[in-house]
Amino acid sequence: MKEFSFTSFLTSNLNVEANDISALTEDCNRRVYKKDELLFQPGMVCSHTFFVEKGLIRQYSIDPAGKEHILQFAPENWFVSDRESVYFNQPSQYFIQALEETQVVLIDEEFIRVLEKKIPAFRDFNNRLLHNQIRHLQNRVNLLLSALAEDRYLTFVKMYPDVLLRVPQKMVASYLGITPEGLSRVRKELARKNKQ
Amino acid sequence: MKEFSFTSFLTSNLNVEANDISALTEDCNRRVYKKDELLFQPGMVCSHTFFVEKGLIRQYSIDPAGKEHILQFAPENWFVSDRESVYFNQPSQYFIQALEETQVVLIDEEFIRVLEKKIPAFRDFNNRLLHNQIRHLQNRVNLLLSALAEDRYLTFVKMYPDVLLRVPQKMVASYLGITPEGLSRVRKELARKNKQ
Repeated sequence: MKEFSFTSFLTSNLNVEANDISALTEDCNRRVYKKDELLFQPGMVCSHTFFVEKGLIRQYSIDPAGKEHILQFAPENWFVSDRESVYFNQPSQYFIQALEETQVVLIDEEFIRVLEKKIPAFRDFNNRLLHNQIRHLQNRVNLLLSALAEDRYLTFVKMYPDVLLRVPQKMVASYLGITPEGLSRVRKELARKNKQ
Repeated sequence: MKEFSFTSFLTSNLNVEANDISALTEDCNRRVYKKDELLFQPGMVCSHTFFVEKGLIRQYSIDPAGKEHILQFAPENWFVSDRESVYFNQPSQYFIQALEETQVVLIDEEFIRVLEKKIPAFRDFNNRLLHNQIRHLQNRVNLLLSALAEDRYLTFVKMYPDVLLRVPQKMVASYLGITPEGLSRVRKELARKNKQ
């Protein structure tokens, strides 16, 4: 029997037997999105968190001047969601889009309640995910405030080693808050340093 | 009897009688910091969340070039903490400093457990605080990625209406990720628009 990667993810993080939760995770709603398909767009209220089993997703906004700004990439085993919209039941300002053909698990509040009931450790794990997101966003703000494009790039490479090879350079630049030309300069400078 | 503002804050947000929790909150550790005094600095593990009863605090970092970057201001009734350091028990990268003479409540994990036991609604409230922080940080990243200094400034004024009058302009510029000259231009432009 094929094991879903969401099952493996939960069993390895919650330290429980796969059998104990595979019945739950197999019944989850799954959906495959085509490359470039939108999972979600501004004005909608987000009612799910998406777990990426295969593929790659980005969360982004478009400013009044029409420029895209990428908040997050989510490759395999990442969650992506507009938590503000889910939790506060507010219309989102963000797009969520598949950058490759992508299979996701759609996680709703009901499923979270079932998990918390069956696996008491899940509540702590969910709390850990929230703190992890705060840690990640706090570091992102700090990096965006500092003007050092090279540091931003190196942090990106460390966090998303394979995303770099899967998306156009202009998307990496958009995530980093620098121009594509700025990104190109950083890469050349790093290549020069590595040669020395 | 003087009512502490931490007591008022909890009773109004948790919809409970002040008497039910005033015994707990009166026993909390409180401390007064002088203007410019550091509550906390990089390398230390943060073991508290600070609730500001009176005064004003900032959380900031200093980059390798010696430049300050302000992550957060916390006036009265705000919490401030390095949640990454508290939760993951890691040395912090941030400074937390009083910008005026400031009285804070020091909240530790033990106090949170007591509150959760005495007031079951506190767990949901704490969860709401985490989501609120995620909402705030996510919007901050989005604003920092977009190049519109005016939008950043207007969001700041809305969120921190009185902080604007209590800190030097260079700190506002540092929070917004723009130069003091850029901030000055934005303010002049807004004044010009308002006159029309």
